Amino acid sequence: MKTIRLSIIGFGAVGQGVARVLRIKRDYLVRSGIDILVVAVTDSRGACIDQNGLDLKVVLQRKKESGTVATSNTSSLDVIKNTDHDLVIEATPTDIETGEPGSTHIFESFQHGRHVVTSNKGPLALQYKRLYNEAKKNGVMFRFEATVGGAMPILNLAQDILAGNRIISIEGILNGTCNYILSRMAEESLSYKHVLGEAQELGIAETDPTYDVEGIDTACKLVILANAIFGMDVAYNDVEVTGITNITSEALFLANVEKKVIRLIGEVEDGNKKIIRVAPRLVPKQHPLAVGGTLNVALLKTDIAGPICINGRGAGSIETASAILSDIIAICRKNT
Amino acid sequence: MKTIRLSIIGFGAVGQGVARVLRIKRDYLVRSGIDILVVAVTDSRGACIDQNGLDLKVVLQRKKESGTVATSNTSSLDVIKNTDHDLVIEATPTDIETGEPGSTHIFESFQHGRHVVTSNKGPLALQYKRLYNEAKKNGVMFRFEATVGGAMPILNLAQDILAGNRIISIEGILNGTCNYILSRMAEESLSYKHVLGEAQELGIAETDPTYDVEGIDTACKLVILANAIFGMDVAYNDVEVTGITNITSEALFLANVEKKVIRLIGEVEDGNKKIIRVAPRLVPKQHPLAVGGTLNVALLKTDIAGPICINGRGAGSIETASAILSDIIAICRKNT
Repeated sequence: MKTIRLSIIGFGAVGQGVARVLRIKRDYLVRSGIDILVVAVTDSRGACIDQNGLDLKVVLQRKKESGTVATSNTSSLDVIKNTDHDLVIEATPTDIETGEPGSTHIFESFQHGRHVVTSNKGPLALQYKRLYNEAKKNGVMFRFEATVGGAMPILNLAQDILAGNRIISIEGILNGTCNYILSRMAEESLSYKHVLGEAQELGIAETDPTYDVEGIDTACKLVILANAIFGMDVAYNDVEVTGITNITSEALFLANVEKKVIRLIGEVEDGNKKIIRVAPRLVPKQHPLAVGGTLNVALLKTDIAGPICINGRGAGSIETASAILSDIIAICRKNT
Repeated sequence: MKTIRLSIIGFGAVGQGVARVLRIKRDYLVRSGIDILVVAVTDSRGACIDQNGLDLKVVLQRKKESGTVATSNTSSLDVIKNTDHDLVIEATPTDIETGEPGSTHIFESFQHGRHVVTSNKGPLALQYKRLYNEAKKNGVMFRFEATVGGAMPILNLAQDILAGNRIISIEGILNGTCNYILSRMAEESLSYKHVLGEAQELGIAETDPTYDVEGIDTACKLVILANAIFGMDVAYNDVEVTGITNITSEALFLANVEKKVIRLIGEVEDGNKKIIRVAPRLVPKQHPLAVGGTLNVALLKTDIAGPICINGRGAGSIETASAILSDIIAICRKNT
């Protein structure tokens, strides 16, 4: 059994979820021949490092009590450059304008020969091809299941499991916040403003909800699917985006009369005309895309398997950590 | 690029589907570094063998014109024993009483050091553990995605993609014929007998529909899931089975009043009390299991990813061949 040494860069909801899942799954992983040693954890205030492996219980406790994991002011970049390890979990927040600090972290990791698993959409939505080429050049693996659909395993489904199929198109609901708002508005005949407020209270929507409700988050995820699954070379600016802020309860009422719902659908198609767009669409209630609540869903049209539809929880720190764990395991299986 | 030499044992709908898919996908596979040479194809009347690779177009044509692929009376077992190749595609029909001829074919393949991909449920529903151990003993791979759910990739989803998760339970619709009958009865207020006749005319139900409508087919698939995913050691006789023959249009009408449908649900749960049963159940119309037509669906409850639901076409020769192809590719990736 080879030991995989990893760092967790960024220790917000996702990073902490990863730490919790690695603790819960430690015995299972060892039984599967995978021994994981977390040698460093960082947040914006510093790092804790132990080449013999950190006690994650202690790290989680320190974060909770003092607001940081830091036992030194070593930066994330320092850890990536100077701490001996195999795999970087890049779990800093998405910045769709600059891609930072994720992009720099990921490029540095590759250049130091470290595999990367990330949940950060920014770097992928802005410069997928450069990242892909850099990983290849350095002979390391780069996986990012957690960037799209949370626990819903769409990237690995399309790339590994449906191997042999050409994916013709993907349509899906990739943002749980929008789906919650549209579902609630229709079910309870409530206004957009009312439900948004409710979602903010429940922690389902951010205080500034722009990123979700304007379709930006969905667009970033579509870009990742377009590049990784369809081999396109597109960035966030190539997507045609309409959000849900102008959807009225009247529109939802009229949809209901026709046994339909309105959903924010992301769509990417690799036909003669390449399509990549996000917009609210009418969906029949019985259609597989008509999922409710904060679920995510994706409908893949394939050339020989036909249509395959998958849904699951699109968010949540443990669910996102599950996607990260599946990527860690895939890397361990290839490299041990 | 290493060449994988394979045989197709059994050349009914599934075997022919595999041949068609291998022809369609030849260039794609070569581009992916996989060179497949079909060195033998057999049916109940004999075999055609060419160590330099058969022309599948010619084989398909001969089957169509003369009802057999045979150019010699060499048996399937002879081919498995004496023709030099790496991988056996066992595509003979399921016999749930004896498991034959599939079981003998598969055991012989393992003993001759050949990997096996199969669509035949019989051997797996009767003696999964023995097959698993025999493959292990001989150091070969054994994959059977096509036995459950057709093109819906449930085994590979649970075993590869959700790696790290404990699967707590699986509920699903695993028989498209029953689902078609129940959907049509409800939608058109028709009797069981009427819709069965219609399904038989359309080729969706067999002349003797017992195997499907009594829940036997679903039970076999559940046994495969129970053994392969949950590590149980069960056989077909361990399943509690109720079919759909006693479902009346009145029952479906009453379900509809409550916004529900009736579906034949297979269920396996690995809790304190192990559950493995097939029975008609009421399902809310908006529930992810409430798919219509001949679709298959599976809802997996997992410990960290939460619930994941997948649906796809449960039957069709090309769709089944897609599942077989994904298994072939997985074996090629591991062995080249």
